[in-house]
Parts: sequence; C-alpha cells; structure tokens
Amino acid sequence: MNFEFQNPTQLIFGAGSLSRLGEAAKAHGRKALIVTGGGSVKRSGTFDRAVKSLKEAGVAFAECSGVEPNPRIKTVRRGAQIARDEGCDVIIALGGGSTMDAAKVMAAAVYYDGDPWDMIFHGQQNVYVPQKALPLIAVPTLAATGSEMNPSAVITNEETNEKSFVQAPCLYPRVALLDPELTVSVPKDQTAYGVCDLIVHVTETYFNSTARTPIQDRFAESVILAAMEYGPKAIADGTDLEAREQIQWAATLALNGWVSSGAGGTGFPVHMIEHTVSAYHDITHAAGLAIFNPSWMRFAARTNPKKFVQFAERIFGLEAKGPDDLDCAIEGIDRYEEFLKSIGCPTRFSELKIDGQLIETYADETLRIVGDGHGHLSGVPPMSREDIVAVLRAAL
Amino acid sequence: MNFEFQNPTQLIFGAGSLSRLGEAAKAHGRKALIVTGGGSVKRSGTFDRAVKSLKEAGVAFAECSGVEPNPRIKTVRRGAQIARDEGCDVIIALGGGSTMDAAKVMAAAVYYDGDPWDMIFHGQQNVYVPQKALPLIAVPTLAATGSEMNPSAVITNEETNEKSFVQAPCLYPRVALLDPELTVSVPKDQTAYGVCDLIVHVTETYFNSTARTPIQDRFAESVILAAMEYGPKAIADGTDLEAREQIQWAATLALNGWVSSGAGGTGFPVHMIEHTVSAYHDITHAAGLAIFNPSWMRFAARTNPKKFVQFAERIFGLEAKGPDDLDCAIEGIDRYEEFLKSIGCPTRFSELKIDGQLIETYADETLRIVGDGHGHLSGVPPMSREDIVAVLRAAL
Repeated sequence: MNFEFQNPTQLIFGAGSLSRLGEAAKAHGRKALIVTGGGSVKRSGTFDRAVKSLKEAGVAFAECSGVEPNPRIKTVRRGAQIARDEGCDVIIALGGGSTMDAAKVMAAAVYYDGDPWDMIFHGQQNVYVPQKALPLIAVPTLAATGSEMNPSAVITNEETNEKSFVQAPCLYPRVALLDPELTVSVPKDQTAYGVCDLIVHVTETYFNSTARTPIQDRFAESVILAAMEYGPKAIADGTDLEAREQIQWAATLALNGWVSSGAGGTGFPVHMIEHTVSAYHDITHAAGLAIFNPSWMRFAARTNPKKFVQFAERIFGLEAKGPDDLDCAIEGIDRYEEFLKSIGCPTRFSELKIDGQLIETYADETLRIVGDGHGHLSGVPPMSREDIVAVLRAAL
Repeated sequence: MNFEFQNPTQLIFGAGSLSRLGEAAKAHGRKALIVTGGGSVKRSGTFDRAVKSLKEAGVAFAECSGVEPNPRIKTVRRGAQIARDEGCDVIIALGGGSTMDAAKVMAAAVYYDGDPWDMIFHGQQNVYVPQKALPLIAVPTLAATGSEMNPSAVITNEETNEKSFVQAPCLYPRVALLDPELTVSVPKDQTAYGVCDLIVHVTETYFNSTARTPIQDRFAESVILAAMEYGPKAIADGTDLEAREQIQWAATLALNGWVSSGAGGTGFPVHMIEHTVSAYHDITHAAGLAIFNPSWMRFAARTNPKKFVQFAERIFGLEAKGPDDLDCAIEGIDRYEEFLKSIGCPTRFSELKIDGQLIETYADETLRIVGDGHGHLSGVPPMSREDIVAVLRAAL
C-alpha cells in the first residue's frame, strides 16, 4: 500500500449554501465566467440566485451557456475565448458533470496557447498536461459525477468520435459548493443516472484491485449502500431533502479520492469502454455505464471472484459457500442489475437502439485511445480486444 | 448536514517512504528543525536515516529533542527558540503524537511574540488563535493520534495542571509522511494504546451525534473494524507489516476529517475529561481513554441508545431486539471493554494507582477549561458536574 494523496478543494456543503457563492468567488477573483448547460439552471431560478449572490459580493461576471451533455472540445474553446476576451479571473461551473468538466478544461485553456484538445489523453502520445488553470468554483446541480472535488474531466471531440479524459492537479476546483436544494428539481431519470454513475465510480476501483484493502473496501461499500438506500427515495420523491443530501454526499465521496486512496485500482475499464460507445452515439454516460457495468462484472468475477463474493455478501446480504463462490458472486451481480432496472436505468444496449454493428470499432478505438500500448485495456483482469468485444456483445 | 471541510495536507504513504523526507523538506525550506521525543528514534536508527535523506537533498538541520509523552509548554517554548536562533524555515516532527503536537505549536510560536500558552484553549478567554506557522512535515513513528493530518495539538502546562488543545488551519502539516516500517519496533503496550487512541477518536464523533449520517457512520465502523482486526495482529507480531500498514492508515483516517465531516459531532467529552486526569497524573493518554471510554459509553447509551445498538450490531455482530434495545447496547460496550483488556489496555483507574480523591477536582477543572460556560461539557448528552463525577467514579 504505497500511494500519495492531496486534495486541496474547499468543500462547502449544505442546503442553502448557494447564497455563499459570492463570498466564495470573491476570495478567488473579481470577474467570474459562469459556465452553464442547456438552460435548466435558468428555468429553475438557480442562475438568478447565483448572480444575486455574486452581485451582493461585488463580483462581476460573463457567461458561457450551452455546454452539451457530452461536452465538446469546441465548447471548451469557445468558453476559454470568452474568459480571455472578458478578462475573467475565476470560473464558476453551475450545472452537472458536463458543465463542470468543460469549465475545468476552459480554466486551463486560458493559460495555454495551443488547442485545448492537446490536453485530452488520446493515445499514448498526448501532448500537454496542463500546469496552470484559473481558479474554479464547482456548483453541481446534479448528484452524479463527483467532478466537483477531483482533478479530472472528460471531453468529446465530435470531429474524431473520441471521448477521453484529462487529469492534472491544477484542475482541482478551489471550492466545491454543494447545495442539495439545487438538486430537488432533477427529474427521475437523471436522478437515477446519477445514482448509477456514482456507484460505478466506486466499483471501478473496488473491483479493479487485488490488493488487500479492508478499509477502502468498507468505505466503498458505505457509499454504495447509501446510494442504494437513498437513491430510490430521491427518485420516488424529488423533494426529499435528506435523500438528496445523502446522494449528493455519496456522489462527491465516490470520486474525491477518500475511497480509492491506496486501494490499488489498476484502471477504469468500464468508463473507458463506455466513453468510446458514447462518443459514437451521444448517449447519457450513466446509461452506458448501467448497461455495461453488470456485463463487465460477470466477466471480471471469473478472475477475481473474492471481491465479487464480498460485494454480494456485504451489499445484498447473500451467504457465500466460501470466498471463491462464483454462484454467489453472480447472484450479487444479478441483484445489482435488478437494482439498476428498478430505478429505471437501461441494462441492454438494445434499449437505446444501439445494435452490434460497430462493436469491433468500439474495441479498436478504446484500445487505440486508452489502451496500454500492448493490446490490452488496464484492469483486473486486463482486457484483450476479444474480451472487450465479448463483454459488449453480452450487453446487447 | 451543513458543514465545511478542507484538508490541504499532502499524504505520502508506504513502507520505505522515509527515504523521501529530504525531497519533501526541500520543497518547503532550506533548514529544518527536527523535533524528536525521548530517544527511541535515535536508538532505532530512524533519526540517522532521516538525516541522511535531508543531507542528500541538501537540507540543513538543527535539533530539538526530548519532547515528553504529555508535551509541556516549556518544551514548546524551547523548540520555538531553537528554530528562531538557528534560522529554521521548516519543521520536521519525527516521533509520536506528543512530538507532532509540540512541533505544531513550535511552528506557530515562531511567528508569535507572546507566550505560546496563549494559543492553548484554557477557559472561554483563550487569547490567540494562531494565524501563521512554519511549514511542518509530520513523520509519525507510532500509529495512534492522527496528528499527522489534522490541525490540532494538545499541550500540557505543568505549572497549572492544565492540558488542553489548539486548533487552527495553519497547523495542518504540509506533508504527512507515513512509513509503516518505522512502527515495527513499537512495543506491544504502545501499539495497543495506539489502537485504543484511534478507536476513541472515531467513537467520539460517532456517539456524540444524533444526526442521521449513514455514510459517516459506516466510515467510522470501517476504521474501528480494521483497528480491531489488525491491531491484535500488530501486537502479536510487531514485524507484521501488513498489520502495521492497516493500523497506520486507520489512525490517520480516524482524525483527518474524512470520517467526521458532516457527522454532526458535538464534542469530544472523553478526551476532554481524560486530558484533565492526565494533566494531574501524567498517564499515557490512551490508557486514560481505555479506562474512561467504556464508562462514558454506559452513561451515554441511556440517552442515545440507537447509536450504541448500531455499534453492537455492526462491530460485534450482536442482534438487537429493536433499535432502542439497551441490553444489546450494553452488551456491545462490554464486548468493547473486553477487547481493550484483551490487547492489554487498563480499564480501571485503580490499575494505574489512581484513586478517587481528586474526582471532584477533575470535574471542576474540566468544566473550567473546556466547559460550555454554563456548567456543562458538550456532548450527547451534555454532561453536568455530577455526570462527570459519576462516570469517573464508575471507572475507578
């Protein structure tokens, strides 16, 4: 267990904390670029409340709206240009994961003379790891990605059908302002996708490790159990503030490093493959995860049954005949898939009208963009082209 | 669940990481004050290895040795003076919790013209919250206090029999360098005390909250379960590096805020009362905790049985008849006390030759130093003078 960790993000959590946005922004700049998505923050009044708080604090602002669900590199370019033209010295992301991710890369692009796509990992020869970024304040309006307290972003290049990530210390938001009240208007389907997204963030590290990490394992299970208890409550009644709080906190914890530090995770194979599929089909990220994760789990359980048995026992209360009881492991995965269905997530590509025609292309592209350079995708076990094709096919 | 959190400490974890001390120190200064305790780091060779790493990195050093188990304010004064006289610009704490705590206050005292005792909370009228401190690198040689990744320190004033705390953001170590190999020579009794110390850090927040905090509760249980599984292994075989790793990680997590953020803890009553007792008797902090914590739990379970029932069920696998089953709660506390005995901790004051003569003084002093100003000590439930006396008496 050898690792390093540092997460400098200041966390402000609690219902009503949006009113503190101005104060938080003022600590980091004088003119903010407010980055938003498709308009829901305007319809809900969240945007106006954010602006009110900024005005009270004497912070000026410019605006970049219209970040797409799978945020495009062209939008990043546009936002960075607005920030430069308007002389913004702090960026506020007010939206979901896409908005936060786009805002992160805008914040770094302001300081980079080349094309921001250079920062996104695409093949072994990625060009530029960002070293400096404008201070970012992340205000999620959806409990899902955990982007608000981590140094990563995922961006799509619509011209090349590539969707991939960047990770750099300068991308940690300075402030994560988490106001669960902002999420009460999130519709049932998006709430369910958020729950799925956060669970998969946790399972990626949990299952892609063979190290003995008892504390990290239990931390991961803590987050999954909370998501499975409070997710359905938030879906059933969007105004259940306690449920909204719990899934907001779970989403942040799922990817801020507290669960995964030292856990020995070797990759994010489910995410990597889903990125390729959604680069081609522009599907909701978490819908792709819901479909692909159980299929991948059935594949991986054969190599690493102990972790899946532990999952079955501790998450679903099943009783295994022994630590390698594959039947119990599979039963746990089935239960997990049933849970995803029960909250309204798709679990087969056919539900999204995606057939198998491009399966080999997805595998090739995944390996080209984020493969290990030796024909495999990292994870436990590492996946060959044939493995990727087979697991995708099982999810059709 | 409204809270703020930010922990800027850089964590470097892993067997052998002491060799990275020089690199870490060089990032923060040119001349280090190395603060050490009673000499074990010299006998074990740890000090020489630390110096070697500093020399290789070109970092000069001065030394302040002899920090006591309950560190004295006079030692803090002495260390700060050495740092000033020698022109040190970074402080390295190489030792246990006492050494780290003393080093933290030295780091702040360098920038403060008054007496460092002003910084220690003693009564409602404490004088000075430190605003600035030299960068500190914490290298624990014992898995116990978690001081390496938090902004608190506990100091004793031997002239006034006061032992109390300071807490300020500037006291976060810049680096926590955790090398479990350094702990393999820790004797059995100190290892056991460390296990007890870290468990009580977790239980203070766990039990002194009535908020519904499902994730934090499970995080806390994760740490306790790991301590109870790996603690006895480390005691049985000090060279069991996996066990040393796990309790080192558990000790850091117990008090770095990851478990307690948003958990709604209202106080640290067990610590506060123990501080008073050990100010009078100079006993090992964790020995005092081992004695006093079960007694306090039996008192608090009557007010807040649900949490104690949950503890009994999840830590000891007991089956409660209902969420308020006090018998089950008490059985869990008995089991916990048995665990402490089994690893060699005292569970009655008489084992330390402390009789009841000063019990009322402890209660009065605790309320004077850290009381709420209205005759109570914060916690669930708040403790009156009579409560404190009764709980101490039950632990004689």
